[in-house]
Amino acid sequence: MRRVVLLTDFGTADGYAAAMAGVIAAAAPGALVEHAAHDIAPGDILGAALALSRYARIYPPGTVHLVVVDPGVGTARRALAAEVDGRAYVGPDNGVFTLVLGGAARHEIVELAPTGTAVSPTFHGRDIFAPAAARLASGRPLADLGSGVSDPVLLDLPEPVRDGAIIRGVVLHVDRFGTLLTNVPASWVRGAPPGEREAHVDVDGVAIGPLRRTFGDVAPGSPVALIGSLDLLEVAVRDGAAARTVPATAGSPVTVTVQP
Amino acid sequence: MRRVVLLTDFGTADGYAAAMAGVIAAAAPGALVEHAAHDIAPGDILGAALALSRYARIYPPGTVHLVVVDPGVGTARRALAAEVDGRAYVGPDNGVFTLVLGGAARHEIVELAPTGTAVSPTFHGRDIFAPAAARLASGRPLADLGSGVSDPVLLDLPEPVRDGAIIRGVVLHVDRFGTLLTNVPASWVRGAPPGEREAHVDVDGVAIGPLRRTFGDVAPGSPVALIGSLDLLEVAVRDGAAARTVPATAGSPVTVTVQP
Amino acid sequence: MRRVVLLTDFGTADGYAAAMAGVIAAAAPGALVEHAAHDIAPGDILGAALALSRYARIYPPGTVHLVVVDPGVGTARRALAAEVDGRAYVGPDNGVFTLVLGGAARHEIVELAPTGTAVSPTFHGRDIFAPAAARLASGRPLADLGSGVSDPVLLDLPEPVRDGAIIRGVVLHVDRFGTLLTNVPASWVRGAPPGEREAHVDVDGVAIGPLRRTFGDVAPGSPVALIGSLDLLEVAVRDGAAARTVPATAGSPVTVTVQP
Repeated sequence: MRRVVLLTDFGTADGYAAAMAGVIAAAAPGALVEHAAHDIAPGDILGAALALSRYARIYPPGTVHLVVVDPGVGTARRALAAEVDGRAYVGPDNGVFTLVLGGAARHEIVELAPTGTAVSPTFHGRDIFAPAAARLASGRPLADLGSGVSDPVLLDLPEPVRDGAIIRGVVLHVDRFGTLLTNVPASWVRGAPPGEREAHVDVDGVAIGPLRRTFGDVAPGSPVALIGSLDLLEVAVRDGAAARTVPATAGSPVTVTVQP
Repeated sequence: MRRVVLLTDFGTADGYAAAMAGVIAAAAPGALVEHAAHDIAPGDILGAALALSRYARIYPPGTVHLVVVDPGVGTARRALAAEVDGRAYVGPDNGVFTLVLGGAARHEIVELAPTGTAVSPTFHGRDIFAPAAARLASGRPLADLGSGVSDPVLLDLPEPVRDGAIIRGVVLHVDRFGTLLTNVPASWVRGAPPGEREAHVDVDGVAIGPLRRTFGDVAPGSPVALIGSLDLLEVAVRDGAAARTVPATAGSPVTVTVQP
Repeated sequence: MRRVVLLTDFGTADGYAAAMAGVIAAAAPGALVEHAAHDIAPGDILGAALALSRYARIYPPGTVHLVVVDPGVGTARRALAAEVDGRAYVGPDNGVFTLVLGGAARHEIVELAPTGTAVSPTFHGRDIFAPAAARLASGRPLADLGSGVSDPVLLDLPEPVRDGAIIRGVVLHVDRFGTLLTNVPASWVRGAPPGEREAHVDVDGVAIGPLRRTFGDVAPGSPVALIGSLDLLEVAVRDGAAARTVPATAGSPVTVTVQP
């Protein structure tokens, strides 16, 4: 069964997300519509890119990922469809696919060509992106949807830097639990067996302590640095919210001191 | 595949919406349950009617729309089912179907008759409306569910008025992005080709400027008046929230000065 | 069609819930994934147990209920799967299944055994619970997933007490509408026919009045005590929020004086 998985910042209460689902129900009646999220913060392209990277490749090949976080609707930004490692992607050309494209073995991207139907200048989710997703879910080949693109917009993500025993990174995102996702990859701080890790973590001047394996390694209410499910360094508080305890937001500096 | 699309103000965290979905899964196992929204503001019948109008007719014929925004549960208000232009509707008789009935070519409405099963006096979504939706999704004809109704409750929506070159309307609703949806129809302000439109818009004394085509026609952070995806005048702020910039709420007066 | 119904406190914006749905789509492609809720308050095990109790048994036999409200992830708490009256349950051993097990005619519980695949120490929803749910949805027998457990963790719920004509209970939970769910069972306060009930209800010193049948029995804005859809005493405000009017929160004392 072909699935179309929606990710937007439309919320649900206004009926915009349901309008997109309805387009797919009408145009690809055999496809299953699933809703990943509609509560991405309005216009938060990086937040959408991170969310997408958590689930896109877990879905089976053939899945169509429809992503409409599109603050540039009604400007000259392009509308894209792509095939990346067997999954299809549809959405605006604004960097929302950066993390999916980054780790890809193979990808092919097209700019969606006009189809001749009427298009609201403010709701491309309904009038351009959902119809394109429905076409892919109905088995139309990607190349039928438009002509090739080789220069998709990519987000300029902050890169961590290493300076001897010091790694300097930043908080990329704060999740629902107040956990801080950083841009420091697991491979930079991991290496010694768990018990012997001597990486000490500091967020915006607040000492978090050594790298741990999991929440249970600290007392309730205590901060803990660990490798999260995206294989990046995260800072959490057991049974609490690191963003309040530390405190930190996206962009806060993170320092890791590695004792080799 | 028959779809039942749910719209409520129940939220999801209490399990009320899932109880309705479970009723349909048990009584109409071949139907697909889709969730349009459960975060309509508690008791906001107009909000539900507007949301429904954005997606109801986009879904294919045969779809069952189950709408339970029902502040009158446990009073004498009737429970309805309807067929409107090939789609079915189930919900309380409180005006929530006003916009769907308004644009209909054909409609037939019945008052749901008691079925003899136990009914909680506070949760008709589970005990009356979801079972009725399941019956329709299983192919039971509308007439089997109750007897005809010719006087459904309709919302008394504010109507715009025209006074020479001046149109006076109101803000109907503020959406998730802070965009102001007005009751001024596109046909009243549109007519001249886009570049020549000379309709100037004012919300509660704040000048918005001329009617534009889309967000990209103004600078980021600037207000813009345009025709939205419901073919009504909307006032937005590019990359911002008009409701905060203007500021305005549902009921705020809107004036359009048309230069013919 | 086998259904897997998800209930978590993950929110949706971070993509965690979609990651779980993707695991099921990949491992049990014929199963339907439904989302009960992802906005349980972070770590609110009782809230999840109450929500689950509202819908779990309504779904048809064969349904798999996947519940991940898991503040103890990364500690020694067990991971469970169960079969209770024909439905399957998967989640952490922290009491979240208390209300489902409480009313069960038959149940069988196992502790999930490791499957040999890599497991993130912070995201068992994706790496342990969703795969187990997919196995059950694919028809694997419960006994294949682990060895029997006879002592699942159960929540220590406050019990109401009766002292002559006085029943003393507490508010268990406040729902989206501000309605107060108490731990006083219908059978303790009901008995006389509706019109003759003489049970007077008091919440934290505020008199609510006699037990009523439904909202319509009081004027808009007035508090009302009634038997809710879980067959427990509830206190609501018609067209309002009891939690604000009374005011009360989980744990607030409730007194019922029954005139026999």
